[in-house]
Amino acid sequence: MGNADFECRQRVGVPPPKPFLLSLKSSLKETFFPDDPLRQFQNQPPGRKLVLGLQYFVPILEWAPRYTFEYFKADVVAGITIASLAVPQGISYANLANLPPIMGLYSSFVPPLVYAMLGSSKDLGVGTVAVSSLLISAMLTKEVNPIQNPKLYVQLALTSTFIAGVFQAALGFLRLGFIVDFLSHATIVGFMGGAATVVCLQQLKGILGLVHFTHGTDLVSVMRSILTQTHQIGHLKKGLNPPSVSELAFGSEYLPTAIKTGIITGFIALAEGIAVGRSFAMFKNYHIDGNKEMIALGMMNIAGSCTSCYLTTGPFSRTAVNFNAGCKTAVSNIVMAMAVMFTLLFLTPLFHYTPLVVLSSIIIAAMLGLMDYEAVVHLWKVDKFDFVVCIGSYLGVVFGSVEIGLVVAVVISLLRVLLFVARPKTHVLGNIPNSVAFRSIDQYPVARSIPGILILQIDAPIYFTNANYLRERISRWVDEEEDKLKSSLEIGLQYVILDMSAVGSIDTSGISMLEEIKKTLDRRGLKLVLANPGSEVMKKLDKSKFIEAIGEEWIYLTVAEAVGACNFMLHSCKSNSTKTIESEEAQADNIV
Amino acid sequence: MGNADFECRQRVGVPPPKPFLLSLKSSLKETFFPDDPLRQFQNQPPGRKLVLGLQYFVPILEWAPRYTFEYFKADVVAGITIASLAVPQGISYANLANLPPIMGLYSSFVPPLVYAMLGSSKDLGVGTVAVSSLLISAMLTKEVNPIQNPKLYVQLALTSTFIAGVFQAALGFLRLGFIVDFLSHATIVGFMGGAATVVCLQQLKGILGLVHFTHGTDLVSVMRSILTQTHQIGHLKKGLNPPSVSELAFGSEYLPTAIKTGIITGFIALAEGIAVGRSFAMFKNYHIDGNKEMIALGMMNIAGSCTSCYLTTGPFSRTAVNFNAGCKTAVSNIVMAMAVMFTLLFLTPLFHYTPLVVLSSIIIAAMLGLMDYEAVVHLWKVDKFDFVVCIGSYLGVVFGSVEIGLVVAVVISLLRVLLFVARPKTHVLGNIPNSVAFRSIDQYPVARSIPGILILQIDAPIYFTNANYLRERISRWVDEEEDKLKSSLEIGLQYVILDMSAVGSIDTSGISMLEEIKKTLDRRGLKLVLANPGSEVMKKLDKSKFIEAIGEEWIYLTVAEAVGACNFMLHSCKSNSTKTIESEEAQADNIV
Repeated sequence: MGNADFECRQRVGVPPPKPFLLSLKSSLKETFFPDDPLRQFQNQPPGRKLVLGLQYFVPILEWAPRYTFEYFKADVVAGITIASLAVPQGISYANLANLPPIMGLYSSFVPPLVYAMLGSSKDLGVGTVAVSSLLISAMLTKEVNPIQNPKLYVQLALTSTFIAGVFQAALGFLRLGFIVDFLSHATIVGFMGGAATVVCLQQLKGILGLVHFTHGTDLVSVMRSILTQTHQIGHLKKGLNPPSVSELAFGSEYLPTAIKTGIITGFIALAEGIAVGRSFAMFKNYHIDGNKEMIALGMMNIAGSCTSCYLTTGPFSRTAVNFNAGCKTAVSNIVMAMAVMFTLLFLTPLFHYTPLVVLSSIIIAAMLGLMDYEAVVHLWKVDKFDFVVCIGSYLGVVFGSVEIGLVVAVVISLLRVLLFVARPKTHVLGNIPNSVAFRSIDQYPVARSIPGILILQIDAPIYFTNANYLRERISRWVDEEEDKLKSSLEIGLQYVILDMSAVGSIDTSGISMLEEIKKTLDRRGLKLVLANPGSEVMKKLDKSKFIEAIGEEWIYLTVAEAVGACNFMLHSCKSNSTKTIESEEAQADNIV
Repeated sequence: MGNADFECRQRVGVPPPKPFLLSLKSSLKETFFPDDPLRQFQNQPPGRKLVLGLQYFVPILEWAPRYTFEYFKADVVAGITIASLAVPQGISYANLANLPPIMGLYSSFVPPLVYAMLGSSKDLGVGTVAVSSLLISAMLTKEVNPIQNPKLYVQLALTSTFIAGVFQAALGFLRLGFIVDFLSHATIVGFMGGAATVVCLQQLKGILGLVHFTHGTDLVSVMRSILTQTHQIGHLKKGLNPPSVSELAFGSEYLPTAIKTGIITGFIALAEGIAVGRSFAMFKNYHIDGNKEMIALGMMNIAGSCTSCYLTTGPFSRTAVNFNAGCKTAVSNIVMAMAVMFTLLFLTPLFHYTPLVVLSSIIIAAMLGLMDYEAVVHLWKVDKFDFVVCIGSYLGVVFGSVEIGLVVAVVISLLRVLLFVARPKTHVLGNIPNSVAFRSIDQYPVARSIPGILILQIDAPIYFTNANYLRERISRWVDEEEDKLKSSLEIGLQYVILDMSAVGSIDTSGISMLEEIKKTLDRRGLKLVLANPGSEVMKKLDKSKFIEAIGEEWIYLTVAEAVGACNFMLHSCKSNSTKTIESEEAQADNIV
């Protein structure tokens, strides 16, 4: 093997220069349109494009022509099933939100109709949810007392629903749906558990009060107590949703509260609706467009806020029942809406006597289902950091408030991401016997280190947050290696190979760090060698002239090639080497 | 090659289970003690440990015994040189901070003495800096008018200096020095440029006013004007620093302002001092301990605030002059302090007549040096995102305030890190001819794809922020590959190999994502194969039972092995394959 052999090796590619606007366009596209929604419009005549565009924004136009009677039969069964759930749940959750119970029923009439037109999920059952109801109550009650000032309270709830809808639709239109991803699974588990705990404690208080009351044991006073309690729930009038556009209180002094409530509850409701829709879409193997779904959920809340409905989304319980009852399309939501309409027109007075304890039981039963102990145990077993996020979110909600819980969880989650980038792992690599693979010595105890050569792998992008750390850490690896070799009779350290395979990106601070490392190593008489830098990194190294500084011949496609070249130099320069290194030589020959 | 061959391959290692506390300890150590400061204490007798500990906190004890007369000669020359710079600069910057000019001289006396004892840099020249002076003036003048209420203004400046010192030392003691790394080079370039622009505009106003004044052209009025102007600067009294502990205004209603000013200016001063110290240490190839340096800078400001000095750090200009004048150790700071002491005792009255225009010129000259156009051009060429950070920081300072500029830059920088993790790159890999390496087809146009197998590389840790994106992106790659193959006569897609080499970590959301991908691929009749997951990832996959779900035999050490196994299956199962795949087979044989 001679120097000439090295010349015919595959060079590490520097990607061809790409105009700035083109690369900006492609990275914007990847950020905001990762699902490539315009793909289906390519190479279509204008008329077809119009139809596709309409179908994109109003999905019912796409699937309605293919709708069959078989589907309809299944959807009717599923729709009536979820309607029977919707009535008591609607009343209970409205109670939780300190709103008139009839609003819970209204909310199961208009929003499902809107969703059936615009939504892309076939399984989502639309309705109010416990957590959002609780949030509305918690945030609005701070400012307005719902007993003393019920009209203003309802106005604020409707206004915040409107704002939640606008916010949700705007996120969808602006393709910012990925913000929802920042609520991790662990955050949601902790948050739901905390909210459920708070709600249960509140309901227990009520139930305990009732228990205390029955010490009287006579039926008349118990009945009276129950009737008194139900009277606190408010009257249930017959009739469909009255319009409520005039109730939107944009001129109110409490508008900032309504905006804050709308954005927070809208965000939480969105996260729940999208997560539920995606989970069930996965079961049936179809795709949900997150941004389109946000527009649908937002539109349904805007329409809802104008027709006396408060915040709705896709609750897990109702969707699961819908799915199990065999729904085929969003028509099941239309059927549910019709059933609720029938209830509103003819049956409402019957629900007047639903006692508080029944509502409390419904709420507590729903809440207990939200506390996912198994998920918490799973988090502890698999990922301690996610466990901390979950517990932080839980404790924040229980001992602080829902907002504090959310902020705590999101901050801890983001800190984890930042910490990963600020303190990347560096591994010493060794050769796996009988292969050209080089792997971490910690993970593969069989991996053998190569005398005279230190191979380090960096496990994260090199950014300003970790540039100083990496410089210190790499110096420390070199120090430790030299200390170790000093005491042995082995060949001294000559080469430091940085395996850049896992370095996805680099910024100017990172390049300065590499330049400093090179200078330091040069001064110590050591040679810096790079292995397998990716295209992003090569582009930056090229532009900053670092490739010229290090010499293109010291950048290799694989660690094995780099080791081969270093070994060749060691062998030809150090004839007084105390150890033969033919085996590695032979191995390097295989790949050159 | 038979199935038996696969059995003898090197298994992907699952690291042995490590007790939770042990792994917590090692990750805390890597986060807070990356430089391993306790290493030198290992295996030392108690007496030696005490000496080493004292030397650790008071570095002068370490190097003073080795101090030679040669060093002293060099340090005297350097010290006198920087003293000649310290006097006009001190007066100018104090002027910039709206503080009595004598405080600028005091600040070049006590703090350098403290730093010489505690600092670990051999080159840092201690003194006040323009940016911090400007910041103090900008933040305090909002609350207190320095002309109308000079005593309170000075008290607040001293208090904020004390708080800056405590903050700096606390960061060092708590090993939180890495927070300084969050100010990237690009941020600092933009910030300094913005601050310099603001200062120059302020000074120009003064100079232009003076130009307007000289329309009178007679010497007497010009002299009078200059003298009037210098009188606005305040009297310069002879004598050393008076004690100022009693001036620390902790009971003042403006304490919150002083705290805010102290923390912000302390942080900026720290970033400058550490960056300057590190840069010059690199030239001379010695090491600076960031946390120790913070304690030294903090202590010198605490001592300074008790002796009528305001905020000091290691200015770039003074350090560069010190370095060029040939300083050997921190003794040059002691010499400078002595020279300033002599000035304070005997020469101060001479500076009484320094005219404002001279001070303005000194400031403007220093400021022009801070505007680093070349660095901005470099940022634009190498890294557009860093350029945006730099410009954001500049515009924030110039059109908003120094705080706004800093917040803008830090937020943009962090967004970049988060965006990297939220939108990781995925690459399709192909085989580099005549090797077992698989590389991105975009970067290496020679790389050939393998029929029936899609190889994807993920370039970032899989976290909650990117789990949804990656699921969509991987589905899209599979869709595109299937579309492409549908129109050709090649073998249909059978295997999807995920190259996990660059996935440094995974959380529970990421594991759920992998589980969902596996389910989706199973349903489409495709097989998911993993290549080279790292130890962190293998640990999590093992704990979450994903390894059981996918089957240990579908996790390979290298992409080449995975491709070999898939090809073997394709070949033996699909005898009606339309294309021979012997060449890849043969290649896979090489490595099994």
